[in-house]
Order: sequence, then structure tokens, then C-alpha cells
Amino acid sequence: MKNFYQDGPQLSNTFRSDEALQKILKSLLPADAQKVALPHLEHLGERAVTDMLTWAQEAESQPPVHVPFDPWGRRIDDIKTSHGWKALEKVAAEEGIVATAYDRRFGAASRVYQMALLYLYSPSSAIFSCPLAMTDGAARALELYADADLKARVLPHLLSRDPKTFWTAGQWMTERTGGSDVSGTSTDAHPFTGTSEFGATHSLHGTKWFTSATTSQMALTLARPDGAAPGSRGLSLFFLELRNDKGELNHIQIHRLKDKLGTKALPTAELSLQGTPARMIGGVGEGVKRIASVLNITRIYNSICAVGHIRRALDLAQDYSGKRQAFGKLLKDHPLHKSTLDSLEADFRKCIAFSFFVANLLGQEEVGEASASEKILLRVLTPILKLYTAKKSIHISSEVVEMFGGAGYVEDTGIPRLLRDAQVFSIWEGTTNVLSLDMLRAFEKDQAGQILEQFLVLNEAGSEELVRLQKLLTLSGEQKEQHAREIAFLIGNAVARIAMKKYSL
Amino acid sequence: MKNFYQDGPQLSNTFRSDEALQKILKSLLPADAQKVALPHLEHLGERAVTDMLTWAQEAESQPPVHVPFDPWGRRIDDIKTSHGWKALEKVAAEEGIVATAYDRRFGAASRVYQMALLYLYSPSSAIFSCPLAMTDGAARALELYADADLKARVLPHLLSRDPKTFWTAGQWMTERTGGSDVSGTSTDAHPFTGTSEFGATHSLHGTKWFTSATTSQMALTLARPDGAAPGSRGLSLFFLELRNDKGELNHIQIHRLKDKLGTKALPTAELSLQGTPARMIGGVGEGVKRIASVLNITRIYNSICAVGHIRRALDLAQDYSGKRQAFGKLLKDHPLHKSTLDSLEADFRKCIAFSFFVANLLGQEEVGEASASEKILLRVLTPILKLYTAKKSIHISSEVVEMFGGAGYVEDTGIPRLLRDAQVFSIWEGTTNVLSLDMLRAFEKDQAGQILEQFLVLNEAGSEELVRLQKLLTLSGEQKEQHAREIAFLIGNAVARIAMKKYSL
Amino acid sequence: MKNFYQDGPQLSNTFRSDEALQKILKSLLPADAQKVALPHLEHLGERAVTDMLTWAQEAESQPPVHVPFDPWGRRIDDIKTSHGWKALEKVAAEEGIVATAYDRRFGAASRVYQMALLYLYSPSSAIFSCPLAMTDGAARALELYADADLKARVLPHLLSRDPKTFWTAGQWMTERTGGSDVSGTSTDAHPFTGTSEFGATHSLHGTKWFTSATTSQMALTLARPDGAAPGSRGLSLFFLELRNDKGELNHIQIHRLKDKLGTKALPTAELSLQGTPARMIGGVGEGVKRIASVLNITRIYNSICAVGHIRRALDLAQDYSGKRQAFGKLLKDHPLHKSTLDSLEADFRKCIAFSFFVANLLGQEEVGEASASEKILLRVLTPILKLYTAKKSIHISSEVVEMFGGAGYVEDTGIPRLLRDAQVFSIWEGTTNVLSLDMLRAFEKDQAGQILEQFLVLNEAGSEELVRLQKLLTLSGEQKEQHAREIAFLIGNAVARIAMKKYSL
Amino acid sequence: MKNFYQDGPQLSNTFRSDEALQKILKSLLPADAQKVALPHLEHLGERAVTDMLTWAQEAESQPPVHVPFDPWGRRIDDIKTSHGWKALEKVAAEEGIVATAYDRRFGAASRVYQMALLYLYSPSSAIFSCPLAMTDGAARALELYADADLKARVLPHLLSRDPKTFWTAGQWMTERTGGSDVSGTSTDAHPFTGTSEFGATHSLHGTKWFTSATTSQMALTLARPDGAAPGSRGLSLFFLELRNDKGELNHIQIHRLKDKLGTKALPTAELSLQGTPARMIGGVGEGVKRIASVLNITRIYNSICAVGHIRRALDLAQDYSGKRQAFGKLLKDHPLHKSTLDSLEADFRKCIAFSFFVANLLGQEEVGEASASEKILLRVLTPILKLYTAKKSIHISSEVVEMFGGAGYVEDTGIPRLLRDAQVFSIWEGTTNVLSLDMLRAFEKDQAGQILEQFLVLNEAGSEELVRLQKLLTLSGEQKEQHAREIAFLIGNAVARIAMKKYSL
Repeated sequence: MKNFYQDGPQLSNTFRSDEALQKILKSLLPADAQKVALPHLEHLGERAVTDMLTWAQEAESQPPVHVPFDPWGRRIDDIKTSHGWKALEKVAAEEGIVATAYDRRFGAASRVYQMALLYLYSPSSAIFSCPLAMTDGAARALELYADADLKARVLPHLLSRDPKTFWTAGQWMTERTGGSDVSGTSTDAHPFTGTSEFGATHSLHGTKWFTSATTSQMALTLARPDGAAPGSRGLSLFFLELRNDKGELNHIQIHRLKDKLGTKALPTAELSLQGTPARMIGGVGEGVKRIASVLNITRIYNSICAVGHIRRALDLAQDYSGKRQAFGKLLKDHPLHKSTLDSLEADFRKCIAFSFFVANLLGQEEVGEASASEKILLRVLTPILKLYTAKKSIHISSEVVEMFGGAGYVEDTGIPRLLRDAQVFSIWEGTTNVLSLDMLRAFEKDQAGQILEQFLVLNEAGSEELVRLQKLLTLSGEQKEQHAREIAFLIGNAVARIAMKKYSL
Repeated sequence: MKNFYQDGPQLSNTFRSDEALQKILKSLLPADAQKVALPHLEHLGERAVTDMLTWAQEAESQPPVHVPFDPWGRRIDDIKTSHGWKALEKVAAEEGIVATAYDRRFGAASRVYQMALLYLYSPSSAIFSCPLAMTDGAARALELYADADLKARVLPHLLSRDPKTFWTAGQWMTERTGGSDVSGTSTDAHPFTGTSEFGATHSLHGTKWFTSATTSQMALTLARPDGAAPGSRGLSLFFLELRNDKGELNHIQIHRLKDKLGTKALPTAELSLQGTPARMIGGVGEGVKRIASVLNITRIYNSICAVGHIRRALDLAQDYSGKRQAFGKLLKDHPLHKSTLDSLEADFRKCIAFSFFVANLLGQEEVGEASASEKILLRVLTPILKLYTAKKSIHISSEVVEMFGGAGYVEDTGIPRLLRDAQVFSIWEGTTNVLSLDMLRAFEKDQAGQILEQFLVLNEAGSEELVRLQKLLTLSGEQKEQHAREIAFLIGNAVARIAMKKYSL
Repeated sequence: MKNFYQDGPQLSNTFRSDEALQKILKSLLPADAQKVALPHLEHLGERAVTDMLTWAQEAESQPPVHVPFDPWGRRIDDIKTSHGWKALEKVAAEEGIVATAYDRRFGAASRVYQMALLYLYSPSSAIFSCPLAMTDGAARALELYADADLKARVLPHLLSRDPKTFWTAGQWMTERTGGSDVSGTSTDAHPFTGTSEFGATHSLHGTKWFTSATTSQMALTLARPDGAAPGSRGLSLFFLELRNDKGELNHIQIHRLKDKLGTKALPTAELSLQGTPARMIGGVGEGVKRIASVLNITRIYNSICAVGHIRRALDLAQDYSGKRQAFGKLLKDHPLHKSTLDSLEADFRKCIAFSFFVANLLGQEEVGEASASEKILLRVLTPILKLYTAKKSIHISSEVVEMFGGAGYVEDTGIPRLLRDAQVFSIWEGTTNVLSLDMLRAFEKDQAGQILEQFLVLNEAGSEELVRLQKLLTLSGEQKEQHAREIAFLIGNAVARIAMKKYSL
Repeated sequence: MKNFYQDGPQLSNTFRSDEALQKILKSLLPADAQKVALPHLEHLGERAVTDMLTWAQEAESQPPVHVPFDPWGRRIDDIKTSHGWKALEKVAAEEGIVATAYDRRFGAASRVYQMALLYLYSPSSAIFSCPLAMTDGAARALELYADADLKARVLPHLLSRDPKTFWTAGQWMTERTGGSDVSGTSTDAHPFTGTSEFGATHSLHGTKWFTSATTSQMALTLARPDGAAPGSRGLSLFFLELRNDKGELNHIQIHRLKDKLGTKALPTAELSLQGTPARMIGGVGEGVKRIASVLNITRIYNSICAVGHIRRALDLAQDYSGKRQAFGKLLKDHPLHKSTLDSLEADFRKCIAFSFFVANLLGQEEVGEASASEKILLRVLTPILKLYTAKKSIHISSEVVEMFGGAGYVEDTGIPRLLRDAQVFSIWEGTTNVLSLDMLRAFEKDQAGQILEQFLVLNEAGSEELVRLQKLLTLSGEQKEQHAREIAFLIGNAVARIAMKKYSL
């Protein structure tokens, strides 16, 4: 045993090894879409364990660096990212991780196909999936609300498959006053008097506290035009480009990059807008409403990435359980280890089924094929899906770390990153509690609560959990709020079971 | 709102603010012990939020560095630790964090008093509590099994309250072949032929994979004497001193420090014994048995530290909930936030009650006051306590990180450390599954299973969970193993409830 | 030879081993001063190779860190320095490195005594000698020009021997527009309207490009009052305190710490004054004149530190030459190595003799014992001394690095630092060319050129170099400027020879 | 002046801007060679200030990292280098920096052409020129002394212009016992008994203290076969390949990378040979003789790189002198600044003329066109050239740093690197003193001293320095050694003047 060295876990083509994904796609994609999508996904599943993996490790080990000044004292706010990070951006363009959703070659199925790409791309992307979520959300917002000239200028970049012309977008919402609560937004928008290539209407002044994509070319943000109301009602949505044609930042100052628990390769910054030219999208005071339509997309991204993350964690744990011996047996041959793994795997199946169920609703909505109640389901299920998958990904990541014992706690195995990154899924796009309350609010509109309940009763009749849920739904006021999380998880479990049945998982 | 800056969470004297601890101590400590202990604990509770806190931050931000060679190529294996880390070691000596358990001034209550010190010390110690666990375990092993001359040489150092003479101890058990499973230990022990200040009997050759205290002065380790049996049966326990009187390492080579998810200030190393002089303690093949008695201590340390950690996390979250506004109210005034916090606080009370219940059993056992069934309870409850508190500390830490939103994910707030450090509690001293199986094994001996069941029935009659537990306990073989975790948590919850009642929590 | 390891160089008491210093002090210090100074210097010579050395290494390996923001986004501009750096500041206070010059217990000899302390302190101080130079210069400026109340407030701090009350001072002269050329200073001084503890008269706005002591408590700086003339004529000298009584910076923003070739432990910063309260010292437009008197002090500090640096480099090289073998002999037994070392040692003797000759003139001037021509000599020799010792220290450091071969190029031996640090001596306080021209300008005033020439002729009659010098001094205009460096070095050599004779070196 | 920002220095095509180089090449290259070489050099001069410059900065800012172990404890000794460093290796292959010398398309002029390439490549290569020197030296040694099969196996790699097949070579001579003095080499060579792809004859055991190219594919080294004599006489030259066909190191353990003053991108390592298969080249005891022929090449590389470095430093200083104002004028309009720069420029012309004069001799010798006395000149002038250019490069670099004032001392301007890197030129390949003595030894053989003297008299009759030189040459024994440096510099100056005349500089 002197020269014993443990073999580490190994990954193989992540499409080919993922039965659940394959079943779901066979259920959701029409035949013509399968013909295109499946080989493409197999190809990406291979990249995910070869070149992408190398770049992701490089990107993780060389985090971005902020250079505020040049040697001579000029403010430059350069953000240096690694070769690996840049290579992963290229992959995103080449593989059409965003674009696939917008060519709508296969109708509603295009969104499912695109989410499957994202699901394979994400866990080997060093969280480049985050800028992509912002990009997709921005593309949707522009598609829905921007004037024709702005669309013509920007959409071809966001949807490009050519790395040279591909743009990513940022969404700069969070300020120091609040995370998800944007009502205290203190960024002002004054009328813009200069000239601007992209039709700026205002110049913005304010500080943004978390901006996840400061290396992107454009951003959407919220600001309060002169004279607008306080609170959320006074906010408008703005489009801006980060740099002018000389490559200088457009009156933007970056304060610092955040030193985060995880998502180490992602350049998350604190910044100030100091007279930044911006163009209003939609009308005065319509900001929150406009941004809401984007939230569906970014929350589903968050969910798909969380599920991709869970899959990755389990792939590593399962492979390792066939290689590591303890107390005379391989880990996988220990009944308790086996039952622990199995229960995590069952959680995974719930999550993936639930996620693609909602992704499919999104696809239907985007191409105008969703019924009224499907639209409502999409609206109420999205926050539930997001919080459900986020919590599962943290729990599973922590269990997987533990399954590796000491090796799981040591960074060069790559295992601790699983937990560090997973934690962010419960914070981005609204925490568990914020989204639980969002769900309650959604129930009140258009009889959404009843529609959801009917959907569950129809598909889940008799379940014990359903009884409990129905009881909780009768609560009101403070009491209902206190149980909002429990309600969310009961619904999440129920919908997951329905989806699993649908996809024969 | 332009100039709005959130105030961060603040800590106050951690003894004075901790009602649960105070109640427990009033229940467990006799009056004379209270007179001494309570002011001491109040004093330490103050240090925990003043000087110790500063040093802990310093120690975290200046992790230890391994210098393998001097400038001229000589192997030196120097481990440089920060000023803060060294200061925290001094506090440990001055405050008698280990010594208090061994003066036994208050009989069994001395252990309770000592564990209360540890509980306050630990969350502001940058995990210096880990070397202390090893030191306490070593003191106990030497007390029980070492020859008089060795005791006389070493115990005064381990139990010193003078930083100048204080020693810490390491326990070097883990090898590459196994974590908790030491049966594959490949360290050889050949007869020692030289001279040695501490009566070395063997010289050791082998590699130790995780050694948490390579800056300590002594260590206990396992090795296989020439000709001894394979597997665990052939292992003996050895005492060694790390450095000779010139300050050189005693034929020990340090390969590297581990870059860990958390416990950043703690110098965890991989090392080789290359002819290290060592003295056998106990007989050939008695190694595992001897080390077992130490495990009770280190596992209870792990539990107390996990509970101290939970308290710290909740103190921060509670203070912050009274400072942070969202959606128009302080966090603490949101019913859902409040109910979430309350449920974590309830978990905390379970954990602290359970921990001191077991610590008290340990104290009784150490001074010979434990009955036969109390000894058995100590044996079976120790692994359950350890796994129970570890899992709770991870869950609560993750929830607390989430409660801080984005700020919880940014390292300079100190919040992410809560999660990074918590994860280790489930790995050190045996993972959840390893300990669940250890519990099952313990049930088989001396009718321990029945004794525990009786204890629960007596104290918990009628509980629904108890019914489920009793059913699971009738399973056998593989099936029982599959449910070992569930059994452990059912027992944990039950004992926690019993202890809470006992301490009026 | 398998197990051959080279022994590194070792230092012994740097006072006891320094014959040249001892001879000079015996020549310059009266008997009563010797009685006090020599034991003190021997004590400091011991610290220089014991505790100070450890702290200096610690300070070098933990460079200062700038923290612009607190976790919640507040601008704090904290500069974290190491424990070693702080300990070296304490030594400076305790040993009276500045204070000794101002108690004037031994008249003019107090300055010589103080410079001897500095000479021993400096090479083991990780360049803490730089803040001390600024502190001494500030003390002198305040002594000469400040109002009584300001003196009473500040001088006791600058001259304190108690680390708790000791202050250091910064001098913030350099702006982006110019190094030594302050004429383009763009810091504005507006009338101050608020209240201020130290009697602020103006509030300053501007950017300072190199500020060597941003952890100090006070600073002197130049600014242009509203309406003052452009160029140097419009500048005034200002006193400011860095922090208010809450410990916040007084409207000062630190942009960044400079990442320098050497002087790694020294926190050199770029900063902005953003309405910083300041008190004018002297009248409007007198800034440059007032600062000039400080320059004598800081330039002599620069020189003494350069000579201390040379001594350190040679001590290391000489010790090593008795330990290292090459081609069958110790280095010191190779005639060429020996002659190389000897010539560097001869250069050292020139430098130390020249330095203390000028330090003595300074001492005389400060206590009013200097004759008119001695005052003039002090003025013209100071820039020459500074440039002469700086260039020698670079040359000698580079030669010493080379004498260590590969080991001299490897940072952990500490040898490369010699070259990295030496280079700064030629940049601080005016480069070689700037000072050469300063010397030429000085010649024009008060017949200084002739007085110097007479001094040289009197003491150096017949030297070949003197003939060359006299010829060059007859040049004029552009031609003279072209030869300014050569003139400076000819004078430097001549004065050094005169001083060596005087001190029997 | 508020918004004044200094412009930094800029480089333009380094071939086009270098008159001296152009004149020399027009003098030394025949017309057909010019037709090929000049456009190629112009092309490389452009890359030197465009893509290469970017990669060099990247390579400098991401120094190599040594990873001794994989996550599971296996020794791997991986050396991670940056993307920039790898790109610079590709440039070396593509541009034929080594290969050009060996195709000998233009006879002796091929070497001059190649050295001109190196001269342009080197200052933008982040010192990738060092591995190339080793590679060229190895190619020459193999060409001269290796068996046909080994040549056939290795030379095509060393001389490849295809990055995919290009190999670099290391030379591992230095041990802890001595730098240039290899007599104490303690690496043993035992007969090799295994099988080996490259015909290994021995297996080596020993430690190498400085190895500049541990990422190369092959190395030459010295070792002492069993039974061979002590001292230099017993050493043989060995060829080895670093990795086997699985990519594992061939029984080589890397101890650490050196943390150096400069050459930060270059992975210089300390390593052990632990049974490394190697093939003897030449006979037993011929090691030093064989390596000597390589030294001519590596010393001339050192010289050309030093001169390229000087050119770069002056290009930067000259450009800056036209941009920076001080005291009312551009730096270049200050007579003293101008005369300082001019004298450095004059030194440069001496160095480049001297270097190509010797490079041309090397070219002639390599193609068999050198006369007997030209061979002798090559032998005696090579060490002089090396020490002469090295010392000049340090002096000039330090002056250039000073010319930038504070900006020259700040790393992000790139200026400090000039001094840090220059210092190595005086250490690599023998220090100034070692080479001065080498020169004296060379004088004794084949009447070399007289032949050199005649050459100088013929070309330099009447010079004052020549008189001094002739006097020194009559010294003997210890006295001559003491003056060896002076002799070397007198000859260096004289030959430089002769060469300048020859090339009309």
C-alpha cells in the first residue's frame, strides 16, 4: 500500500451519459428538431469534458484582475480576464448557446433545444453561463420593447454565432440600497444633450453594486428620470453601450471587482455611472414591468445551470464511488453510500424534469403557442423552479463534497468549487424567501392560485402532500407568508413528479 | 439614497448574549463551579468579540506558508504562520481551554466548564480549536496509557496555562489509502537503535496524508511494527516529538500544505516520516483500541465547535435582520424572514442541548462517576452528536449566507467563511455515513442498542418519530445500513428534545 | 560533495565591526557625547542584526495593502502594514532616531550622533528610514517657520521617544506634472471656512503622485492659493493632519499604492486632496523657499542611508568571501576577487567620510556655529553628496550581487534587494542630473563657487583631478551644463579625500 | 495642469529605427544574404513591437508555477507557463531564430544573419532568448560530437521552424558546489541497464542547482562516470531527454522554481536526477572540453542579448526625452540630459560593433573559413565581449531607470524590468571576474596573448589606452590577476573602436 495513489474521478461525454436528458428531449423535441439537436448536443457533451474543461480550469485559476489606472495615472478601469475565459466566450458564440433560442427554427422546441445546450455548456463554462443569461434576457427585452433601429443595431450581435461579432450584455439592477428590491434605486437620468451613436436619450448618474458582466459590450439598467415618482413606479429601463468607438468607457468608473465565495472566473464589479449616455426603452415608469419579462428568462437560466451543476456533482461522485475503497469495499458497494447517492440522484431527476417542463412553457409562450393558463403556469412556476433547484443544488453539492472526504475539502481536486458555486444559485435572481413571496403575489393575479391548484389536483390527485398544500393555501396574511417556503417546496415536488411521469423518468 | 451605506452586523459579548448557554450551565454546574466559571466565561465572551476577533481576521487573511528549502538548498520545511494565529495560541493557553478539563477542580463539571470555554473560544479562533482538539485527545491518551516518565515529560506542556511552555499535539492518522479507515495504514515501525530524549522505541517510515497540526511539538500516530498483522489488528499507537533540540524536524519531510475550502488559517499538511523516532504507547496491535478513547474527545470537540459556529452565524444574521431594510421593512419584520430565522434558532437550541448533554456524560466518565449505562450512552451518542451538529451547521450556515444576499457571497464581509468552514465539520473525525455505521456497530455491543432505546422510551414516550425509529431498529443487515442515517437523525432529534427539556430551553 | 550546502553570509554587531564609523565618531564627537553615544550605537548595532533584522524580513515579505472600500462600499482607504513594519516604527521612536538630533544635548555633535544612529538603523529598517527623513525634515521646517501653537501641538509628537505618541510626517511634493520640478503644481488652496483642531487656513484640492508616508499622521505639502502667481513663485507651504478625531481621512482619497522595483515595505501612494483642511506655513509664495531648508535634511538622510546600504552590502560580500570556495580557493583568496572587494571598500570609505563631513556642517549650522563659508559649503556640498553616494551605492550593490553569482540573483537570499533598493537613492530627492544643475545654480550665489574652489585648493593642492575641475569650472552656459555631472564627481572625490584624511581613514 | 497626464514612451519597428544594425549588416552580409535577411529582419522588427510585445508582457505578469503533486499525492512536477510564453516559443521556431545559423545558406554570414534575428527577438521575448541560447549550444555540441543516430533523432527538432516539432534544450551544469566551477560536480553516472529510445548509456544521480529550461525536451549535462577521476578531469558530457513517451519525467524531480530578481517569465529550476537515463557524448573525462565549444555560442548569445537590451533601454529613454517636460523644457533639450544620453548611445555603438565583429568570427569558424589567428581571436575575445557588454548593459539600464525618475521605479511602466533583467547578463555564463581570469588563461595558449596584442597594435596604434594595456600585460602572477578586469576592459574598448571604424559607426 506504500505506493497507493487514489485515482480521481473522470468525466465522459456528458450528453451520452445523461439518460434523463435524452428521455426528456425525445419527449419534447419533434423529430426534425431531434435530427439537428441530438448530434449537436453530443458534440457539445464532448467539448464539455475536453477543451472546455481545460479552459474552465484555466479561467478558475486566473481570476479577473481590475487595473484602475494606467502607469501614468489615467483612469482606465481595465479588466483583465484569462485566455481560458475568452476561449469559453468563443465556444458560447460558436455553439449558439443564446442564438439557438432565437432562430426559432423548431418553434417552441427551439427554446428547449437551447436550454439543453446551456445545460451541457454551463458546468464546464466557469460560469460564463451568467453573462449568457444576461445576454439572453437582454435579447428578449430588446426584441419585445426596443425600437427597430436599436434592434437592428444590437440584436445581430447578441445572437451572433461568430466570436468576432458576438456581444454579451450586462444587467445592472442591484444597488447598495437593496438586492432584489429595486425600489430604492438612486440612479438619476437627466436628459442627454450630446450626440450618440446609439440614440442616447438620457445621461445616467448613480452607483451599481453588483454588475456581473462588466466586460460586456452593452447593459440594461434601471434609473429614475428627472421628476419621476419615488419607489419602483418612477423607474425606467435603459440601454447603454459600455465603450465609445475609441474603446474608452462611457463615463463609467469601476470601483472594484468583488472577491466572492465562488464564481471566481466571473468579473463581478461595483461601478459608478458618471454621466453615462443611455437610451430609454419603454416609457417613463415602465422599468420594473419591462424588466420582469426578462426575469423569466434569467430565472430559468439559473435553474438550468443549477441542474447542470447537480448533474456534474453527481457524475463525479458516481464515478468516484466505483474507484474508491473504504473498509474493504468500493464505496458504491456500501449500502449506505449507495442509498445516499440514490436519493441525490432521485432529487436530480425531479429537478431536471421540472426545469424542462418550465423551459417548454417558455418556448411555447415565446412563439405564441401558450394557452392562457399555460402562460399563468409559466409565471407562477418560474420562481418556484428557481428556488427549488437552487436549494437542491446546494444540498447535493455539500453531500458530494462530503462523499469525497478530505479530498472533497481540498481545492486542487476541483470538488470544493461545487459547493462554492452552488451557493450563488440561491442568491442570484432573488433569494428563496424573496421568490416565495413573489410566488404568493403571483397567485393573486388572474386567479393564478386556483389555476395552479387545479393543475396539481388534475395530475396529482390523492397525494398526501397535496392535502397539506391545499390547507396552507387557505391561510392568509402573515400566516401564509410564514409558510411561503413550505408552499413553494410542496408545489415544486408535485410539479416535479408530474413532469417526471410525463417524461417517463 | 445616493449616500446610503448598509451597516454591517456587529457582535457583542458572546457569553452575555447567549441565554441557552447560561441556562445549561446553571443546570449542569454546581454552585462553586458557577462562581468560578461564569465570570471567566463572561471574560472570554468579551475577548471573543474584541482582541480575538482581530487576530482571527488577521490569521484568515494571512494563511500559513510552507517553505521547503532555505536559500542555499537545505530542506527546512518551515511553516510560517501569521502573528494573529500565534496570538490565538497564546489565548488558548492563558484561558486554559484544554487545561480546565484536566484540573478537575469541580469533578465532572470541569469538563462541562471546559467545553463552555471551547464553545466561546472556537468561533473567534480561526479554527485554532482544531489543534486544541488534538491536544486534548492526546492528553487523554497519555493520561490513560502512557508510562509515568512520558506523562511527566509531556502532560505539563499540554496542560500548561503559560504560552511559553504550552504545547499543542497533532494526530496523524489519515493516509492516502483511507480517511477514517485506517486499516490500510502503510507506515512501518522498525526497532529504534539510536538514543532519544523521550525514549523512542521505533523509527517510523510512511506518508501521512492529512495532518492538521504540523506546527505542534508532538504527535500521536499509527504504524505497523515489523511482523505485525495486516489490517487494523496490526497497528500500534506511537508518540513522537516533531523537532530535536536543535529545532530540526526529526526525519519528517513536509510535502505541501493543503489548499482547502475553509479553515484557511490552519496549516494542514501532507508529510513523510523518514525514520522518525517514536515511542510505542500500549502494546503491539492495540493502536486502534487506544485511539478510540481519544475519538470521543475529538468528536465532542467537533460538535461543540459546530454549535459555536452555528451560534456565531445566527448572531450575525439576527443582528443584521435588525439593520437591513428590504421592500419597506426591516428583515426581522418580514414574517417569512422571521419564521426562517426562528426555525434555525430552534435547531441551534437542539444542538447546544444535545452537545452539553454528551459533554456532561464525558465529564462523568472521566472522573469515574458514570454508571454502566451512562458509559454506553456516551459511546453511542458521541457519533450521533457529531454527525447531527455537523449537518445542522452546514445547513444553517448556507441559510445565513443566503440571508445576507449578495453581501453573503462576498468574502470581505466574512460571511462566506461561515459556509466554507462549516463544511469541514461533516468531514473531520468521520463523515456522516462513516459515523452512522459506527453507531450501528456500537449498538451491537453490551446491549447498547436496547439501553439507548429504553432511555428514549422513558423520556420520549409517545412521539411519532420514536415509532418510526423503533421500526427501523428492527431492520437488519443491508437494509438497516441503508437507513443508518435516518436512524441517527431520529435519535439525535429525540435526545436533543430530552436535553432541551432537562435544561428548560 | 553530494551533501554540500553553502553557508550563507552572516552579520555581526554592525557598530562593532565598523572601524570607519568608529574613527569618524571619535574625531567628531566630544568626549561627553562619546560616553553617551558609543554605548547607544553599540546597542543599536546589535539590534540591527537581531530583532530588527527579523522584522525587516517580515516587512519585506508582507508588503502594504491598500483597501479602498469596506465590505459595504464605504470609501475607507485603509493601508494595512505588517507587524514587522509597525515594530520597526517602534524601534525608531525608542532609539530616538529623529529625536536625538533635536535635543541638542551635545550641540552640533547631536546631529552627528543622530546620523550615526540613522546609519545603523537604516539598512535593517526595511526603509522605514524614509518616513523618518520626512519626519526630521518636517520637524526642522516647523521649528523654523511654524507658529508657536502649531509647534506646541506637533513637535512633541515628531520628537517623541514613546511609540504611543510618536508621529511620522509625510512630504507630498511630487505631482504628475513633474518630479523635482514643482513649478507645475496644480493643487489649489481655497480659504477654509470650517473649524479645525489645528488651525486650518485653507482647503486643498489636487492630486499628489508619489507620497511616501501615507500612514503618517501629518504631512507638509505645496499648493497654490487662489490668485497666486503661476510657476514656483505662487506656491505656499501647508501643514495638514491626515485623519480627524474619528480616525477618518480628512478629505483625502488614496488612488493606489505603487508597485515599485524596491522599497517594498514602504507604502508609497498616489492620492487626491479633495478639500483637505490645511494650515499655511510662511507666507503666500514662500513655499519653495521654505521647503528648501528641509531638502538639506532629506538629502543628507538619503546619503547616510545610501552609505549604510553600501556598508551592509559589503559586510555580506566580505563575510561570504570567507565562506565560498571556487576553483579550489576561498573567494577572498583569489587576487582578483580581493582587489575588486578592496576597491569597493575604498569607495565606501570615501562615501562615509564625505557624508559625516557634511552631516557635521549641518549640525553646526543648526546650532548656529557655522561660519558664513561653512554655511555655503553645506549648501553646495549637499546635492553633490547626495548624487555621489547614490551612484556609488548602485554600482557597489550591483557588484555585490554579482559576487554572489546565481545566489545573488535569487530573492530568498536577500541579496537582490540590495540592488532593487539602491536604485531609489538616485531618484529620491532629485536625480543625478537635477542635483548637478542644482549645484551649478548654487555656485552662482554668494560667490559659492569660488569659496568651494578655495576650500579644495587649500586642502587638495596639486591633485590632477583638481586641475581638470578648475578647467571645467571656467566653462559657461550650455557647455558647463553638459559637464555638470563630471564637475560634481570631481568635487565629490576631492572632498571625500579631504574628509578621509581628516578622519584618518 | 489639473488634467495633465504624461504620455509614456513608445516603440517603433526596431529594425527600421536601428541605423547601427543596418550599417553593420550592410558591411557584413553579402548582397544575396542582404536580399533575404533585410526584409526578414524588418518583419521581425515589426513583430517585436506588436504581437511579441503583448505576449512578453503577458509572460512577465504570469510567471511560471511549479505544481509538485497532483490532487491525489502523485509527484508530477508540472511547470505551468503562460499563454504568452508559449506564443513566444512559437515565434522563435517560425522565425528560425536558431535554425538560421545552421542552414548556412550564406556561409559565415548565416551566423551574422541569425545573430541579427536574435538581437531583434531578444528584448521582446521575455528572455525566451535564454532557452534558445541553450538550444543553439546544444545543436552545435551535437553537430560536432554526437553519433549519427543521435544527430538524426535530435537535430531536426532543434533546428525546426515548425512550432509543433520544435524542441528547446537545457544545459544543466551548475551544482550547489560551484557556479562556473564545475570541478566539484557530484552527479554520478552508473552504467544503464534498461532499454531507452535514445540509446542511454548511463543513469544519472545528482542535484542540479540552476537549470534554466526545465520545460525543454532535452538537456546536456555533466556527470562523473563510476571510477572516473575527481575534479574536472573526470567529468563527461551527457545527453538526456526529459520525458518518456507517456509524458512522465524520466526520473527527474524538480525541487522548486527560483524566485529571481528578473527574468521572471523564465522557469529556472532546482532539480534532482534520480536515475535519469542519459547518453554519453564524447569519451570519459572529455566533458569540460566538449562543453567549452558550446560556451562560445552561449556567451555570444549573452552578449547579443545584452546589446539588444541596451538598444531597447535607449529607445525608450530617447522617445521619452522627446515627450517629458521638466523645468520648462523637454528633457532632450536639456544639455545635461542630452550629453548623458549621448554618452550612453556611444557605449551602445561600441557594444554592437564589438558583438557583431565576434559573431562574424564565429560564423567564419563554423564554416571553416577562419584563419588560425582568427580562431584565436574568437577564443580570447569571446569572454571579453561577454563581460564587457554585460557590465555596460547594467550601467545603461540603471541610468535609463533614473532618466524616468519616479516612473522608472514603478513596475507597471515596464522600466524597472530593464535593470532587473540586465543584472543577469553579468552572472550567466561566468561573472566578470571568472571571465577575466578565463581570458588570462586563454592568453597563455598558442601565443594568443601576442596575437591579440599584434591585432590591436596594427589597428589602434598610438592610443593612450593601448600603452596602459601593454604595460599591464607585462605583469605576472597575482599582480596580473589583480588587474585582469582592467585588462579586459582596455581590450574591449580597443576592439570596439576597431569594429566601429570597420562598420563606419
